Amino acid sequence: MIEKLYAELDTAYPEMVDIRRHLHMHPEVSFNETKTAHYIRHYYEQLGVDVRHNVGGNGVVATVRGAKPGKTIALRADFDALPIQDQKDVPYKSQTPNVMHACGHDGHTATLLVLGKILHSLRNELEGTYVLIHQHAEELVPGGAMAMIKDGALDGVDQIFGTHLWSMTPYGQIDYRVGPIIAAADSFTLKIQGRGGHGAMPHNTRDAIVLGSQIVMNLQQLVSRRVDPLESAVLSVGSFVAENPFNIIADQAVLKGTIRTFNEQTRDLMEAEMERIIQGNCLAAGCTYEFTYNRGYSPLVNHEKETMYLKEVAEQVPGVEKLYNTPPLMIGEDFAYYLEKVPGTFFLTGAMPDGEVYPHHHPKFDFKEKAMLLAAKTLGSAAIHAHK
Amino acid sequence: MIEKLYAELDTAYPEMVDIRRHLHMHPEVSFNETKTAHYIRHYYEQLGVDVRHNVGGNGVVATVRGAKPGKTIALRADFDALPIQDQKDVPYKSQTPNVMHACGHDGHTATLLVLGKILHSLRNELEGTYVLIHQHAEELVPGGAMAMIKDGALDGVDQIFGTHLWSMTPYGQIDYRVGPIIAAADSFTLKIQGRGGHGAMPHNTRDAIVLGSQIVMNLQQLVSRRVDPLESAVLSVGSFVAENPFNIIADQAVLKGTIRTFNEQTRDLMEAEMERIIQGNCLAAGCTYEFTYNRGYSPLVNHEKETMYLKEVAEQVPGVEKLYNTPPLMIGEDFAYYLEKVPGTFFLTGAMPDGEVYPHHHPKFDFKEKAMLLAAKTLGSAAIHAHK
Amino acid sequence: MIEKLYAELDTAYPEMVDIRRHLHMHPEVSFNETKTAHYIRHYYEQLGVDVRHNVGGNGVVATVRGAKPGKTIALRADFDALPIQDQKDVPYKSQTPNVMHACGHDGHTATLLVLGKILHSLRNELEGTYVLIHQHAEELVPGGAMAMIKDGALDGVDQIFGTHLWSMTPYGQIDYRVGPIIAAADSFTLKIQGRGGHGAMPHNTRDAIVLGSQIVMNLQQLVSRRVDPLESAVLSVGSFVAENPFNIIADQAVLKGTIRTFNEQTRDLMEAEMERIIQGNCLAAGCTYEFTYNRGYSPLVNHEKETMYLKEVAEQVPGVEKLYNTPPLMIGEDFAYYLEKVPGTFFLTGAMPDGEVYPHHHPKFDFKEKAMLLAAKTLGSAAIHAHK
Amino acid sequence: MIEKLYAELDTAYPEMVDIRRHLHMHPEVSFNETKTAHYIRHYYEQLGVDVRHNVGGNGVVATVRGAKPGKTIALRADFDALPIQDQKDVPYKSQTPNVMHACGHDGHTATLLVLGKILHSLRNELEGTYVLIHQHAEELVPGGAMAMIKDGALDGVDQIFGTHLWSMTPYGQIDYRVGPIIAAADSFTLKIQGRGGHGAMPHNTRDAIVLGSQIVMNLQQLVSRRVDPLESAVLSVGSFVAENPFNIIADQAVLKGTIRTFNEQTRDLMEAEMERIIQGNCLAAGCTYEFTYNRGYSPLVNHEKETMYLKEVAEQVPGVEKLYNTPPLMIGEDFAYYLEKVPGTFFLTGAMPDGEVYPHHHPKFDFKEKAMLLAAKTLGSAAIHAHK
Repeated sequence: MIEKLYAELDTAYPEMVDIRRHLHMHPEVSFNETKTAHYIRHYYEQLGVDVRHNVGGNGVVATVRGAKPGKTIALRADFDALPIQDQKDVPYKSQTPNVMHACGHDGHTATLLVLGKILHSLRNELEGTYVLIHQHAEELVPGGAMAMIKDGALDGVDQIFGTHLWSMTPYGQIDYRVGPIIAAADSFTLKIQGRGGHGAMPHNTRDAIVLGSQIVMNLQQLVSRRVDPLESAVLSVGSFVAENPFNIIADQAVLKGTIRTFNEQTRDLMEAEMERIIQGNCLAAGCTYEFTYNRGYSPLVNHEKETMYLKEVAEQVPGVEKLYNTPPLMIGEDFAYYLEKVPGTFFLTGAMPDGEVYPHHHPKFDFKEKAMLLAAKTLGSAAIHAHK
Repeated sequence: MIEKLYAELDTAYPEMVDIRRHLHMHPEVSFNETKTAHYIRHYYEQLGVDVRHNVGGNGVVATVRGAKPGKTIALRADFDALPIQDQKDVPYKSQTPNVMHACGHDGHTATLLVLGKILHSLRNELEGTYVLIHQHAEELVPGGAMAMIKDGALDGVDQIFGTHLWSMTPYGQIDYRVGPIIAAADSFTLKIQGRGGHGAMPHNTRDAIVLGSQIVMNLQQLVSRRVDPLESAVLSVGSFVAENPFNIIADQAVLKGTIRTFNEQTRDLMEAEMERIIQGNCLAAGCTYEFTYNRGYSPLVNHEKETMYLKEVAEQVPGVEKLYNTPPLMIGEDFAYYLEKVPGTFFLTGAMPDGEVYPHHHPKFDFKEKAMLLAAKTLGSAAIHAHK
Repeated sequence: MIEKLYAELDTAYPEMVDIRRHLHMHPEVSFNETKTAHYIRHYYEQLGVDVRHNVGGNGVVATVRGAKPGKTIALRADFDALPIQDQKDVPYKSQTPNVMHACGHDGHTATLLVLGKILHSLRNELEGTYVLIHQHAEELVPGGAMAMIKDGALDGVDQIFGTHLWSMTPYGQIDYRVGPIIAAADSFTLKIQGRGGHGAMPHNTRDAIVLGSQIVMNLQQLVSRRVDPLESAVLSVGSFVAENPFNIIADQAVLKGTIRTFNEQTRDLMEAEMERIIQGNCLAAGCTYEFTYNRGYSPLVNHEKETMYLKEVAEQVPGVEKLYNTPPLMIGEDFAYYLEKVPGTFFLTGAMPDGEVYPHHHPKFDFKEKAMLLAAKTLGSAAIHAHK
Repeated sequence: MIEKLYAELDTAYPEMVDIRRHLHMHPEVSFNETKTAHYIRHYYEQLGVDVRHNVGGNGVVATVRGAKPGKTIALRADFDALPIQDQKDVPYKSQTPNVMHACGHDGHTATLLVLGKILHSLRNELEGTYVLIHQHAEELVPGGAMAMIKDGALDGVDQIFGTHLWSMTPYGQIDYRVGPIIAAADSFTLKIQGRGGHGAMPHNTRDAIVLGSQIVMNLQQLVSRRVDPLESAVLSVGSFVAENPFNIIADQAVLKGTIRTFNEQTRDLMEAEMERIIQGNCLAAGCTYEFTYNRGYSPLVNHEKETMYLKEVAEQVPGVEKLYNTPPLMIGEDFAYYLEKVPGTFFLTGAMPDGEVYPHHHPKFDFKEKAMLLAAKTLGSAAIHAHK
């Protein structure tokens, strides 16, 4: 059975590439992916696969039902692109100015569409049900996942699997991790309001730069003293702006930065203690402040059982040469929300290109297309074997 | 004799106003005051006063010799304007765009010209010699004073007096002070070079914002710990700029600010200890820096004897109602250099206008013209009585 | 075979208790454990077990050789006590004033002695060789492990296992962890030399308290900025002493504290960056310093294969109810050095007493003796099954 | 008249020395000076001078009435000693263990007693009234001055003069100053209550050392940013104590120090802003605190007219070679309270000994006795000439 799946995927690989390149040339930014959604829906409709569109927005959910009883397994691929100008010099370069599939979601979609088609063709021999979740808007908070879940995308689902084609990981390798694999990526803006004045008369002022500096220094204690040393957390103040003529004492200072955490408890602690430190220091300095803490996606926490299962399954996939227990990543991914509802795991499929390697979100980003085949085989194998 | 001087000044007051307004309409910025210099020189030449031009640049020095023996007393007025657009609505508004007598130097010049003319007319009755120093470029470091001194402006001078028409001091009041009356006003620029990076990976970076903040905090110790508490000193960081996207750790930060001191020893200490603190903190942080410390004028230190003399003389001037022992000012004034060479004093002549009051260097700055008369009488009286 | 081991251990349990209580009444501090060493040696000699004494100091190594070929497996128990006054009210209370088995090493020794005796009795049925390492001086850096290794304790050994009876973990539970399970526990002393003086004259001094405070603040950046956020590290300044009359500025300040890390790279980074921060701040402040960084034991890093093996073995031990993947501990343990030489794992055997629970090193510390039986069965099973 | 005073003082100088040495051998600490008070009272009574004792405690006030009308002039001398062991090797060394006239109050008393005796002998030729205030308890807050004033010591007094024999000022010199000449010397104790814990588990603690350090750093801003740079102020944290074993996080830290200011406004500002900074930082850190701010004597502010008068008078005193306009001193002196009630001035009489010089309050402190004569002449001359 699984050999059949692998064989059909091998055969369909050129189609996968065609689809990926078509999508790559016609990218759409988050929450505006109507043509891509239509493309996906149309693909399934032509095959006669049961498909629901406008799920929680532009989301599309197809369902393949095996002839035999079994679990309901969801597989997810996202399909939005980024507001970046494609700077690659390839035939399938983006046709839309300032929009680009710079994160590989085109590949995710092609992978899942072709895998879905083959599962559909094998449905008489399959156990269980396969829910193919094509998600819009992964790149932009609040993301599409929560809306699709609310709109029923996970109804009846027992387990979910997802992957990211990853240009920084060698082809042939799959990165897994039990527990937190992707951080919550939050941001903040702090506007300090002092009282400006002449540089020679500090006593008539409330110096926003001194206060800002004091806050930067004291915020270091969040990670060094307040967070459990066995937990990971980062707070970086990336921007400090208080620009004035040299003989003026600053009236205002604006600080911006990012916070990364791997569980909600630490995240809540960071936000609360940050504000406590800001509040106390402003009180000490006789200044006021506006503080906004913007939450990105929740940390993505893989379930142990499903992750170890995926690892074992992946080890059997032809072409997968290495399973790597990866340290967690400091990016953001709204697959997190599916795992808050049902068990499952999210892994990285190595897709490092042969030539120069660019990080995700880079204007020259690309990935090794052959990795789509490994992703499809791994996801497909995980789905089919789940009923044992 | 002194009554005669006062009477002639009263009579000449309308001319003083005319001169002041003419100059006000035709301002020239520092080091470009060629027409103003020509105007001054021409004024004295027409009267037959001995005058030397191009002294140390655009400077003009006239000399009136009394018939009787006595000391040589110098009086100084500056005549440059500022690169500011005049926003007043008066008939004598500046005719030159973006240039304005926003500090009262037009008034200083008118005062000294008319006083010089009257001293010249009374020369047969006068003791001693009167050196009338019309100085260019007071507003822009390195200023005109040092060049004029080098070019002989103080040769043979026994004492020097100078005043500033002061819009923040009430008309009828004269502000004096023994010792330091005007601070040294220095500035600095500090460019911190760290190593930028991703906001989630601080360990691969050298965070320029944290270092900048640390330096701001530690610089507070200059005034609180390193300077003699009986001395006055100010260090203000007025500008802190490190602008980045929220998830980037700063590669660079640029800090700017001002330092005010009242003697050269404290000034040297501030500069040396500042660099020591910067150097030590950059070492601790593994970063490099570029630090430039720009010296403005030296502190202006009035001589005790001449100041107390001026005070006594001023108390006798009709119209002077109050002598005020002023706290020092945190501005800059290159009259400082004359007092490093010969004894003398610098005082403020109250010139607060009747209506709204704007600070010096403000686009709507103006002063009470009648104050020129008090300034002329006080300077004239100080000069004439000096021979006793 | 394994059932036989379990049965004989059950039978011998009363002897285990007797031995443990005997040792508990006669504790000896680290590097002075001569009577205990003699007791151990004598125990084996009486049984006819091959035993070597004075191994790397007071260490004792017994060897049991199975009749069949197989691997050489080492088991380790430490036997030193602590300079603490026993405050328990039990018949087996320490008879030696100010010395106490307050960490459970008496239990470790009793466990291994009885296990060794039974292995000896079963030797004709056993595969492989069993090296029973009785280690002195675990509680005091540099510890006994390194010296015993140098003296051949690990010669020919293929794998090593060790356990700690743990009063904070429930009876019936075993705590394991792949990778770092116990931190490196280092300490430091920093003596800052400023220049003291009168509290009213800071400019004549170099204030050691301000510098000390500045260093404390800046050291926060070690954990918050310099260490990889995915690594764990702690730096705590636990002591800050600069005691003076209220109107004196501090001449000296002494800071002490601890550093905990889980790998040598982070440990080296902490030490190097600490000194860099201290050096830079002292330069900035014009002060000098003496800094000593004292390394405790290396981090104890369990090998993956042996740990997972131990976990599987332990799950089969009667009485073991739960295997817990523990977060790492911030204590110190020189078992670390064995694992730098040969593969193996170190685990905690739950020994929480039924009544009140006191932490290790507490004057009322005790543990549930029945846990010795579980420890013996787990270690014995791990040793016997290792040849498969 | 004044010549007669000088002559009689010259004659009486040996008595002055005898009295001083007698008092030096029999010192009494503040608020316990009963025998000294009796000695003073008895001295006046024997002469027939009107004397009142137990004024506001141990204070003694004698009154000499001139035959002619005039002002009422007060002169003040303090007579308490210090709890210091005399370490000098002189015949007049203190006979009382651990008590010593280490500040020169014995000299003040001898000076005023003999001056009073001579004024009494000249009373028929004198104008006005002379109030001789012998004050107890100058060395210990709240001091004797306020109580004596309350008890009428200043009733009817028009002007007051006082001096301090000063071992750091050369003999023959008198130090004067218009305005603030002696600082307010306040002290504080700050007890920070955090939550202690294990050095490896900062997240369970509230680290009192980090908070204490943060407060020390932020307090630097009081002087550098909050106080007018033209005012003098000092804040020194002289003691920082949080002593713990190296692997413990501090539960508490105790900070102590001193604050010096020259006017009540700055003093109030320092106290209020100190607490604001402490409060804000404790809030930021989640800790609590106890803060006590102990006010010493008020700043001693000399009146301009009386000071300039004293200066002119002193210039005429034979033996006075130099009048020095001293910078203010950072010590404390409750003569401050007399000057809050009546005009007057306080000056220093140079009393530097010929050999080694020890500062006031040093166990080997001594002064040049001849200075008493200059003090007596200056005070006497100031008192006698005051009626003009």
